[in-house]
Amino acid sequence: VGKVIATQSISLDGYSAGVKAGRDNPLGDDGERLHEWMVGLSAWRERHDMDGGETNADADAIDEVFANLGAVIMGKTMFVTGEDPWGDEPPFHVPVFVLQHEPHDPIEKHGGTSFTFVHEGIERALGLAQHAAGDKDVLIAGGADTVQQFLSAGLIDELQIDLVPIVLGDGRRFFENLPTDLRLEPIRVVDGPGATHIRYRLVR
Amino acid sequence: VGKVIATQSISLDGYSAGVKAGRDNPLGDDGERLHEWMVGLSAWRERHDMDGGETNADADAIDEVFANLGAVIMGKTMFVTGEDPWGDEPPFHVPVFVLQHEPHDPIEKHGGTSFTFVHEGIERALGLAQHAAGDKDVLIAGGADTVQQFLSAGLIDELQIDLVPIVLGDGRRFFENLPTDLRLEPIRVVDGPGATHIRYRLVR
Repeated sequence: VGKVIATQSISLDGYSAGVKAGRDNPLGDDGERLHEWMVGLSAWRERHDMDGGETNADADAIDEVFANLGAVIMGKTMFVTGEDPWGDEPPFHVPVFVLQHEPHDPIEKHGGTSFTFVHEGIERALGLAQHAAGDKDVLIAGGADTVQQFLSAGLIDELQIDLVPIVLGDGRRFFENLPTDLRLEPIRVVDGPGATHIRYRLVR
Repeated sequence: VGKVIATQSISLDGYSAGVKAGRDNPLGDDGERLHEWMVGLSAWRERHDMDGGETNADADAIDEVFANLGAVIMGKTMFVTGEDPWGDEPPFHVPVFVLQHEPHDPIEKHGGTSFTFVHEGIERALGLAQHAAGDKDVLIAGGADTVQQFLSAGLIDELQIDLVPIVLGDGRRFFENLPTDLRLEPIRVVDGPGATHIRYRLVR
């Protein structure tokens, strides 16, 4: 069986979104600075059907996540805000499980991505995703509150923090409302020009 | 002329001290966990006249700071709480400039450490320290509020964050009350078992 991994971009002062984050503004004011390290990369642009872009150590950190990917879990807001921009061929190329309260028929897209809607909670979503992934990894893609739920429930094996060298000053803090006895062990770092990607193993 | 550098241990959730930090409890409740990566190291123990200890990548991060050190600046609390434990041969082995409002005669210790008290502000302390350091580096040793003052004034060339894989939950936040247009560029990472040491260049 594969690992359950999550990645999260945070600012140096610990924010995963700026102020006024919500469904219409998922990263909050100024929060798009958290993703600047990513959007210029060829690794990201290819997955979004765009040409060009840079290749650097930040790209290695993305490639590593996708290299052994078997399934994805995401929250409803990430799906709702992403569905349009992702288009007919979303960048996942694996089954995606969306957490939402309302039942909904599955959606098949091109390129191997499907969306299955799970209203029975995070353990059920994880069970379905692990079954779909086989011996590959399951990625908890976001948003931050979804990653927090899985972390609090002790369901994550490895958390990658993409530490972005900016100070947001205010917003939504990622390491809030988490157990303070959370034990993390740094297992490797990818030292990119746009962010420092630290992979932590969660110690049970 | 050398660089002006600062190092700061912070928790994953951005705290440089736990709650109730003060002169009698400089790291606050539970805050000693921020320094656990350091105190078991031979690099730290040697400087404090103790034998044994571990050698690992965390030690390299300490050695790197001391390798080109010419002078140190610290706040009054760090001096007051450190003077006794440091003993007759403090671990700096260079001139140390202490920021405090009250004038005080210099103190000479063994092993090349002297303490000079500066009541005319941080620029004056930096001028004296750079003169003493010559072409070597000046370290802003702490506490966190002293590092913040130098950061806010734009006087630091390189900031090393020693990111400790713990969640404190509450306490004194390091990246607070700093300009949000602070521009930091990660220039190298030392990937230690006890902390991830990220060196940032401050971009003017």
